[in-house]
Amino acid sequence: MNGGIRMSIAFYKDQFIPVNQAVIPIDERGHQFGDGVYEVIRVYNGKPFLLEEHLLRLESSAKAIQLQLTHTLPELTTIILEGIKLAHLDDAEVYVDVTRGIAPRAHLFPDVPSVLAMTVRPTRIIPDHLRKTGVKITLLPDERWTNCYIKSLNLLPNLLAKQRAFSTGYYEAVFYKEGLITEGSSSNVFIANQGKLYSPPLSKKILPGITRAKVLELADRMSLTFQEAELSIQDLHGADEVFITSTTYEIMPVVQIDDQTIGTGLPGPVTVSIKEAYENEIKQVTNKSLA
Amino acid sequence: MNGGIRMSIAFYKDQFIPVNQAVIPIDERGHQFGDGVYEVIRVYNGKPFLLEEHLLRLESSAKAIQLQLTHTLPELTTIILEGIKLAHLDDAEVYVDVTRGIAPRAHLFPDVPSVLAMTVRPTRIIPDHLRKTGVKITLLPDERWTNCYIKSLNLLPNLLAKQRAFSTGYYEAVFYKEGLITEGSSSNVFIANQGKLYSPPLSKKILPGITRAKVLELADRMSLTFQEAELSIQDLHGADEVFITSTTYEIMPVVQIDDQTIGTGLPGPVTVSIKEAYENEIKQVTNKSLA
Repeated sequence: MNGGIRMSIAFYKDQFIPVNQAVIPIDERGHQFGDGVYEVIRVYNGKPFLLEEHLLRLESSAKAIQLQLTHTLPELTTIILEGIKLAHLDDAEVYVDVTRGIAPRAHLFPDVPSVLAMTVRPTRIIPDHLRKTGVKITLLPDERWTNCYIKSLNLLPNLLAKQRAFSTGYYEAVFYKEGLITEGSSSNVFIANQGKLYSPPLSKKILPGITRAKVLELADRMSLTFQEAELSIQDLHGADEVFITSTTYEIMPVVQIDDQTIGTGLPGPVTVSIKEAYENEIKQVTNKSLA
Repeated sequence: MNGGIRMSIAFYKDQFIPVNQAVIPIDERGHQFGDGVYEVIRVYNGKPFLLEEHLLRLESSAKAIQLQLTHTLPELTTIILEGIKLAHLDDAEVYVDVTRGIAPRAHLFPDVPSVLAMTVRPTRIIPDHLRKTGVKITLLPDERWTNCYIKSLNLLPNLLAKQRAFSTGYYEAVFYKEGLITEGSSSNVFIANQGKLYSPPLSKKILPGITRAKVLELADRMSLTFQEAELSIQDLHGADEVFITSTTYEIMPVVQIDDQTIGTGLPGPVTVSIKEAYENEIKQVTNKSLA
């Protein structure tokens, strides 16, 4: 299609389009209500990583808001693979959303088809040194709704928290609710104490992270003990090691929480071993060559 | 422009467009995050009602999420009045939103201009008999975020509640949080007891309704006593009268809450007098002829 030149590309409704093309009218329920669900999928070496897991979660999110997906999961897979191919990108980020369609604005669900939107573009660069030296995070109150297990397009509280973290010198905002850690504005949280891994239990309060689940699988393979546990702010401050996970962050060590240094101030051994195992997993699954 | 034919019309960025025109790319922060604020303004007799109040609230909402409005309030007024004129509509509904613009998807605020979107269309018909006989509402837990005083595009919990109310035979969902009434999915709540009016206090938990404020002003003029008061579920069930207010509903009597009849099962005298005063206010301000 484009002679092999790397490019960003989008898909809307039923066709591939240039990524900046105006395709959405004002009366679209994503735009007016955030009435939709989404996923972000990383592509390494031209291959989408953990695609099936992401699509299954998209399906769960849609079901939770009584939204009919536009395509079957095999059809979505075909569209995503075609998009990656058309974009000629090895290292890419696929964004997919499904909204409750286009209809004159009214709260009640309209009797119109849902709409699929997708972009495929070069991945946001997370400087590799950050994953080596670790990042600083800030703790903020969790002001979000009670159903954060749904990956919906209602992301304003997450944006405000991320922006506040950034503007005060932190890389990510991690939320607490009634004194207990929930998750980051776009990540899950883990701690390690005496070689053992802990993370808040899955509940309606947090997203069931795909990277989180992969970490648990890797920990199991590495015979690392993992336990779901409610973590207090004090637990985080006093932890030997802290890291956050997401599709984009992968495994990101945390070395400072607000003005408190964590552990030695360097990524600890459990974090580093999980990080290496995750990177190896990517390489094995996608045949990605060593960096 | 259109020879006086009634029509819907839209405005996007800096020009008037057909209401269904695709103008928004996928990478728009309203669509992807609900990252914006909005207002709905009723037009009676070709005149927008309480326009200044709505624009001031739009400004407050924008400020609360650190969003720069695209236009000054006088400029917005001009665009809205021009839209109403172009649409040739006497009875209309103006929807205005401002989003944080168009940029490759990332949580942090991009350095791009905000974008204005507007639609002007015939108002949704609320059958007049409903305002005469009253409606049934259902009480649902308030699952929304903690900053509902901001009129943002994150409306998924409101949609889900409204849809649930509708699908179980109710006209509106009214929320409670920790046993106390907050507001409806798109309305404020009032009760009357022994001729006295009560409504939950303004706080971060509820929208400062424009119609709510007008009701207070009218109550004052009518020498009706009003008091801001935390209302329990029991207070609602036991009230002499209940009504809900919004720009679209205006003053809507509530005669049943779940399976419990309120008062006599008919709109009570305080509700009716407020409703008549509100309708008179519309007529006086907009020179609307009597129905």
